[in-house]
Amino acid sequence: MKILVINAGSSSLKYQLIDTDNEAVLAKGNCERIGQNGAFIGFKTPDGKKINRKTQMLNHTQAFEAVKNALIDPEYGAISDLSEVSAVGHRVVQGGAYFDKSVLVDNSVINKIRELAPLAPLHNPAHLQGIEACTRVFGPKVPQVAVFDTAFHQTMPEKAFMYAVPYKYYEKFGVRKYGFHGTSHRYVSEKMADLMGRKKEELKLITCHIGNGSSITAVKGGKVIDTTMGLTPLGGFMMGTRSGSLDPSVITFIAEKEHLTPEEMSKILNKESGLLGISGVSSDDRDVCAAEADGNMRAHLAHEMLYYQIAKYIGSYYVALGGCDGIVFTAGIGENQPMLREKVCDYLECLGVKLDKEFNKQATCGVTGTLSTPDSAIRVELIATDEEMVIARDTRAIVEAL
Amino acid sequence: MKILVINAGSSSLKYQLIDTDNEAVLAKGNCERIGQNGAFIGFKTPDGKKINRKTQMLNHTQAFEAVKNALIDPEYGAISDLSEVSAVGHRVVQGGAYFDKSVLVDNSVINKIRELAPLAPLHNPAHLQGIEACTRVFGPKVPQVAVFDTAFHQTMPEKAFMYAVPYKYYEKFGVRKYGFHGTSHRYVSEKMADLMGRKKEELKLITCHIGNGSSITAVKGGKVIDTTMGLTPLGGFMMGTRSGSLDPSVITFIAEKEHLTPEEMSKILNKESGLLGISGVSSDDRDVCAAEADGNMRAHLAHEMLYYQIAKYIGSYYVALGGCDGIVFTAGIGENQPMLREKVCDYLECLGVKLDKEFNKQATCGVTGTLSTPDSAIRVELIATDEEMVIARDTRAIVEAL
Repeated sequence: MKILVINAGSSSLKYQLIDTDNEAVLAKGNCERIGQNGAFIGFKTPDGKKINRKTQMLNHTQAFEAVKNALIDPEYGAISDLSEVSAVGHRVVQGGAYFDKSVLVDNSVINKIRELAPLAPLHNPAHLQGIEACTRVFGPKVPQVAVFDTAFHQTMPEKAFMYAVPYKYYEKFGVRKYGFHGTSHRYVSEKMADLMGRKKEELKLITCHIGNGSSITAVKGGKVIDTTMGLTPLGGFMMGTRSGSLDPSVITFIAEKEHLTPEEMSKILNKESGLLGISGVSSDDRDVCAAEADGNMRAHLAHEMLYYQIAKYIGSYYVALGGCDGIVFTAGIGENQPMLREKVCDYLECLGVKLDKEFNKQATCGVTGTLSTPDSAIRVELIATDEEMVIARDTRAIVEAL
Repeated sequence: MKILVINAGSSSLKYQLIDTDNEAVLAKGNCERIGQNGAFIGFKTPDGKKINRKTQMLNHTQAFEAVKNALIDPEYGAISDLSEVSAVGHRVVQGGAYFDKSVLVDNSVINKIRELAPLAPLHNPAHLQGIEACTRVFGPKVPQVAVFDTAFHQTMPEKAFMYAVPYKYYEKFGVRKYGFHGTSHRYVSEKMADLMGRKKEELKLITCHIGNGSSITAVKGGKVIDTTMGLTPLGGFMMGTRSGSLDPSVITFIAEKEHLTPEEMSKILNKESGLLGISGVSSDDRDVCAAEADGNMRAHLAHEMLYYQIAKYIGSYYVALGGCDGIVFTAGIGENQPMLREKVCDYLECLGVKLDKEFNKQATCGVTGTLSTPDSAIRVELIATDEEMVIARDTRAIVEAL
């Protein structure tokens, strides 16, 4: 069964066509600058060439047309007819407390995604545009499934998801911790159980998704009991451009000194903070690594802060879980920055973690495997995440059960 | 040597007269409602009676006059002549990065405390009023010493005290973690080393000051390496009325929805959050305990959150320290709420903590001692804090060295 996986942003649309029978990626690409000048679609040809094609994309419907054309392109296309696509799976960032698993898209689901837009103003409206455009281009008979970033985290207990602010804000606006990257944390935690040859029900795992956005999750018996991201993906520890959680006075103090509106303050904390804000170099960790190697002290500081904050969250989740069987590193930085893993694991020696430093150095650019030594008290693993595959699997399962 | 210890707030002034030769408290009391209607001074007589005396106190100078009169009161006074007071020690909340120890007050010190007022607008100006009033009433020849809440925390490394916001805010406004309750953390960490019969230089300690305001500190070799409070005493975990650290979006989201200024938002997070905000009952933990015992579910939730947050910080500091030799509970709640200590220590079993549950239950209302069992991997201790004694000792040491 061929499933089209869609991740629709406000001005971009990423896609993958996955054959779920053998879990092969048949096609992948992305539309950029939707609704702007210079819109284009980029995609990989079956022989691995990267093609960029300028195309007018005034809206998401035109972007979906471009995706359709790329999929059935006589020269580069992966399929000959659109009817080969059995279903479409959409990534949706904010599912609130409504969705603890993936669901078939219908009017009630669409209304709930819309209702949750104030909690994810940059994402949920774009996902709805994607769903609507998909219906127009693929027709209403192709089933669509919504897979939520928040769903895996819905098992968190109240003590973990509530903020100690006046209770009325929870009742009135749904102010609580939702957590994000759930699809990734679910994928790597289940994969980790497989690799350990254990049932997920009996495991205590800490999964570290470290990318441009980052989060750490505590998974007990296959269920999330805590995660670092919060009401929005700004919570937790520092990321590429995001600050992570703060003493609230930092925000009110700066806002007052600089006469900033909440919206302006939010932009600074989301777009100008984190690795970029401290290093002054870049939000891209590869640039920060290069600057640090050149002796840039602020790039060094940014890394010291990041490693320390990650280690502290792992310590707190060790206690939250009452021990830990396995730690997983994944995502862009987690999969490709051996120094980060080494420095974090240095901190974790007091918990019995022993890193195979030689293998850790080699584990990058697609090399995955066990990073800890056989006598480590906690197994540490590098797993490449694959959110699109989870979306494709969920979509297939829901469509097959119809 | 008799030292007068002063803690001056904006409308209150607490004092203790301590004989540092035998560390006896000769007199203690407090002036309330300074500058308001209904001002009064309350103090204990030598035989333990509590006296409240209405006195006009339009300003801190008049409050100091009232303190003086109480000290030399023919009936209740502790001394017969003011000249018996050798020096005055002042608690000062915010010493910024200037002060890593207590100092003799001179013009340069006064200017620095004033310069730091934007970082502690409720406290530092009041301390200056206290110092000035003291000079007027006791004369310029009586030495005054400033003891800073932040001083003990000044050994924190950059990676612990920096926030991942744009670096310019550190350079421009000094936005960083300062930490508070330093005098208390210093007192109990040094006492803990004494009790363990070990040198503080070789110990890794976690000190939990849990009161109406609360903070936890990681002390390695006698030096602070991290603490939960931040730029202001709002950071860290939930307190009586304070939220602790948050996903910054919680703040900008609520501010936007409710059209709040930074000042209004700050008031909500400082005065209406924490135990009060969640329980809806009270900021006083004794009231929350009573409500929980009556079956109030939000009081129960407030406690579950508090215990969990404390346990997670201890876990993160265990990793930051690279292990832990001792954990100390102190301050109002830490010294008097056995359930809190039991629940927190339950979480810490995975670190080898074993609580003597029977003794823990008895340890309240002044009973202190070792809370852990002899075979616990980490010694857990209840120590009554005494910030005034530290201020008196520091003041004496500085005055003797003049």
